[in-house]
Amino acid sequence: MNSIKIVATGRYLPKNEVKSEDIENQNNLEKEYIKKRTGIDTRYYSTNEDLEDLAIGCIKDLLNKNKNIDLNDTDMIITASTTYDDMMPSLSFKIQEYFNIEKCMCLDVLAGCSGYINALDIAQKYIATLTVKNALVIGVDILSKNKYDDIKTKILFGDGAGCIYLEATNEKKEYVSNIKSFKDSNNILTCNMEHELFMNGKEVYKFATSKTVENINEIIEKSKEKIEDIKFVIPHQSNIKILEKICKKTGANMYTNIKRYGNTFCASIPIALDELFEMNALNENDKIILLGYGGGLNLGSILMEV
Amino acid sequence: MNSIKIVATGRYLPKNEVKSEDIENQNNLEKEYIKKRTGIDTRYYSTNEDLEDLAIGCIKDLLNKNKNIDLNDTDMIITASTTYDDMMPSLSFKIQEYFNIEKCMCLDVLAGCSGYINALDIAQKYIATLTVKNALVIGVDILSKNKYDDIKTKILFGDGAGCIYLEATNEKKEYVSNIKSFKDSNNILTCNMEHELFMNGKEVYKFATSKTVENINEIIEKSKEKIEDIKFVIPHQSNIKILEKICKKTGANMYTNIKRYGNTFCASIPIALDELFEMNALNENDKIILLGYGGGLNLGSILMEV
Repeated sequence: MNSIKIVATGRYLPKNEVKSEDIENQNNLEKEYIKKRTGIDTRYYSTNEDLEDLAIGCIKDLLNKNKNIDLNDTDMIITASTTYDDMMPSLSFKIQEYFNIEKCMCLDVLAGCSGYINALDIAQKYIATLTVKNALVIGVDILSKNKYDDIKTKILFGDGAGCIYLEATNEKKEYVSNIKSFKDSNNILTCNMEHELFMNGKEVYKFATSKTVENINEIIEKSKEKIEDIKFVIPHQSNIKILEKICKKTGANMYTNIKRYGNTFCASIPIALDELFEMNALNENDKIILLGYGGGLNLGSILMEV
Repeated sequence: MNSIKIVATGRYLPKNEVKSEDIENQNNLEKEYIKKRTGIDTRYYSTNEDLEDLAIGCIKDLLNKNKNIDLNDTDMIITASTTYDDMMPSLSFKIQEYFNIEKCMCLDVLAGCSGYINALDIAQKYIATLTVKNALVIGVDILSKNKYDDIKTKILFGDGAGCIYLEATNEKKEYVSNIKSFKDSNNILTCNMEHELFMNGKEVYKFATSKTVENINEIIEKSKEKIEDIKFVIPHQSNIKILEKICKKTGANMYTNIKRYGNTFCASIPIALDELFEMNALNENDKIILLGYGGGLNLGSILMEV
């Protein structure tokens, strides 16, 4: 079986920056309410760009930063989102057409806010089994188009896109995943095809600060690594209170950027990863844990070597 | 790497049978117009059942026919559809909850009418890499809820669900897949989130009678099998004219049931497979090819040993 290597990353945020301060003013919320409650200073809302535009934006960013990548050689395009625009052709097929990629495998994953973990894990399986040599894995969501029954839910979300280009490598690189869905409480975070999103914040908080910790402990045990040797845990950026709690319970060195983007669902993990690479904060052979959780209820982590 | 084995199958059709004759009468189409043009005698439309009900129906059928399967042991649920009802939780998560499966991996695939091939191939990769021991793979579509601008398109479609339960096996069983999407013409078969389906029948016919033949020839070459040694080619049941043309060009022994169900998109292949098992038409070690094609444009085949 082949190992995988992250050879490039990219991200894209729409232009329209929306500050928490402005939302507070518009909605008669007390000053600093959003910052204190969520850790979010600002987020970006798409105005006239659709999901495909955001996805294309992050791929162009990846290509700009990595001139040696020829998308024509791409074997596989996988996307994860909860705000798809069309049933058919779905997003990955549109991306293929936009970038004029003659032939490749395309598919889109629906698995809640945690779908990026599933998409990446599928790509790894295709590379591991020598079915493909590389894969472009995109996470993208436009949450500003959803309708919210509660302003306290709406303030959490932003729009964005991030992507990773994976390649097979002959080097032996560690990779362990731990993905599972829980049968209960699938009504605490829902979104229908009319883009009506409902969230029971309290229940999501409970889930996100308990099952995630179990999941990290399990993957640490499975991999025989120590949490101290994990350079970064890169979580889905849901809410700073949740992330602080997970840190406290696991001792993880966690990377957070929710301050700047809010919760971008399927885009949050690849955006964070792209930032870390851009800052040169990750070096060859560093170990990281990607952690997704959310609607479904879905939960999953990936421990991998850079 | 582990091989996979189909250990059980199931299917479900809603109760409301709609005869081509009745559609002809209601729409002032000449007698036998539909039969001559599509090969379809009858199809089933869901009345008060949703996608989840149909999916549950086919899984119950599988369980009724295979009393030794305990769904609690299921490691993975994957669905393929083009008519999902919710973004979150998506269908596989609802199935998990309905059948009270404590923990498993859930995900839903969007990849056009050919999505079942992708879903099955993903399951095979997870089993091959020893990530899971088994997987329940469901294809389901309710096409009667779509809106059609052309009665000549609408007459093709029916509703249905089919599923396969796969297990890892120590026996060495052949498995080759050949899945690819084409960058051009992704506008000849489309469906948006408002369930408006558009099809350019002529262009779809051209694609479905040429690229499918190439794909079968490629998988035969890749596997070093002969088409004569393939017990059945089990295609997506799109239109009898397309299927006859593919047979003529490839020499395949093809199983068709479009007469009874119409084109049920992601459900067509697992329904056909379930019928073949029910008729005892497939024996241990028989080789079959599953062939999917459709919106995207997506195309894929799987050559596998029963």
